[in-house]
Amino acid sequence: MTDSLTEPLVSTSARTIGVFDSGFGGLTVLRALVDHMPRARFAFIGDTARLPYGSKSRRTIARYAVESTQFLVREQGAEFLVIACNTASALALDAIQDAVPVPVLGVIEPGAEAARAASRSNDVLVIATDATVQSHAYQTACNHRGLRALEKACPLLVPLVEEGWTNHPVTEQVIRIYLDELNATAAAEGLNPDTLVLGCTHYPLLRPLIERAVPAGMRVIDSAESAAAAAAAMINGRAAAVEPGNRAVDTQIRCFATDSVEKFERLGSRFLGRPVGQVELVDLGG
Amino acid sequence: MTDSLTEPLVSTSARTIGVFDSGFGGLTVLRALVDHMPRARFAFIGDTARLPYGSKSRRTIARYAVESTQFLVREQGAEFLVIACNTASALALDAIQDAVPVPVLGVIEPGAEAARAASRSNDVLVIATDATVQSHAYQTACNHRGLRALEKACPLLVPLVEEGWTNHPVTEQVIRIYLDELNATAAAEGLNPDTLVLGCTHYPLLRPLIERAVPAGMRVIDSAESAAAAAAAMINGRAAAVEPGNRAVDTQIRCFATDSVEKFERLGSRFLGRPVGQVELVDLGG
Repeated sequence: MTDSLTEPLVSTSARTIGVFDSGFGGLTVLRALVDHMPRARFAFIGDTARLPYGSKSRRTIARYAVESTQFLVREQGAEFLVIACNTASALALDAIQDAVPVPVLGVIEPGAEAARAASRSNDVLVIATDATVQSHAYQTACNHRGLRALEKACPLLVPLVEEGWTNHPVTEQVIRIYLDELNATAAAEGLNPDTLVLGCTHYPLLRPLIERAVPAGMRVIDSAESAAAAAAAMINGRAAAVEPGNRAVDTQIRCFATDSVEKFERLGSRFLGRPVGQVELVDLGG
Repeated sequence: MTDSLTEPLVSTSARTIGVFDSGFGGLTVLRALVDHMPRARFAFIGDTARLPYGSKSRRTIARYAVESTQFLVREQGAEFLVIACNTASALALDAIQDAVPVPVLGVIEPGAEAARAASRSNDVLVIATDATVQSHAYQTACNHRGLRALEKACPLLVPLVEEGWTNHPVTEQVIRIYLDELNATAAAEGLNPDTLVLGCTHYPLLRPLIERAVPAGMRVIDSAESAAAAAAAMINGRAAAVEPGNRAVDTQIRCFATDSVEKFERLGSRFLGRPVGQVELVDLGG
């Protein structure tokens, strides 16, 4: 893959890739996409007016997700869509694929595929939000690949990230409590997990703390990174090289939100790893 | 006031009191209302389909709040309304008062009034959610009463309560961190606070931990309790006696939600201090 480092990814240079989330957590997916395809154009929309999706019905989530993704395709010219939202990936991927004429990739299948590639024991753990766990989307995707999966909701981790406590002793304690509970349940159920999937777009910001807290030898899979790698492979027709932090390329990124751009602008750069710039307000109605 | 303990609160026996929140945190206000008026009928609605209100515009919040409170008045016959939601109290009280023909009481003015009565130094601290702090509604209400008020957003406390960690060492640490920061800011600004207002309907569940964490001699004011006392005084025409935990009276309570009753039913009893029973789903449109 090292040849890609010298060979420009010309095939993606003119492409616009649309990235959709209910909020701004999906900026971690956008960050990984930029690392893989720094020369592409990106349009990101966070449906902040209507988050959180997790407590809403499948039909409502599908309607919201279709409206946001149609904006990306029709108004922003997106030729490829990444659904950087676990809830929408779990509950609305089919509806989005039916509604737009471009390829659509969610975060769950790539995360499960990366877990399959990483695991030797075929037993994996998944941490995610309450809504994602209740959908059992990761468990289903893992089961389809012959893996056993144990999921755990970790509802404090998103607020801890949004408080900015990504390297805080309280956050480290909370992570250890959650992982201890999860490992105890796994042991009680006779599982021998060797892989942990981060099934929420906020969790990559906690990766250093999580890697310190997992048992020795456990692989940590970031579904944001897995989705970005899968998207790059689909767009380029082959696995793309990662160019993390390639500052030589002035990647074109436009960010949109449906309400309250203030929090998006204030916290977004931490997720994106670069300034998000001015977030444009867009009215999708309803 | 002790005469009220023997004298039945006949004046409220036939009244229906409507209680509105964006979620179910306002059940702590309902709990305090039941303690004050166990013989009243209560109708509670949580607009769970459209929470959180905090990130939405004033106009949108007002529209949502009016729809919910009109349901309480028109469909449930509420003759008195308590807005058990700090965001709606801060941003939509006028709109609600214009839209319904019954008396309406929010949580903020009673909380500020209780702080005025409690404080000798006339310097008070307020902890609340980010949205409530950004509205500066408590600061304004305190200033009108000749108090100086310093507000602090404590965004981790709601998720900690909802995780059930109301008596957990992590929660105690988080409370101490927030209060230490708040007291340091107060000292730096030359304030001498002797009163702390709990400006969020979730916080009464943390009262024991908060009372352990405040400096010696600091009074803790619960705006849920203050609003309930004020409502009882308005309804009875005088201060009502509290009958906490009066189980002899079979208080009539009906709870409604606009979406996802599951979390409401699962967590609600912890806030209400008694089973919430079956939560009825209601469609307000939009």
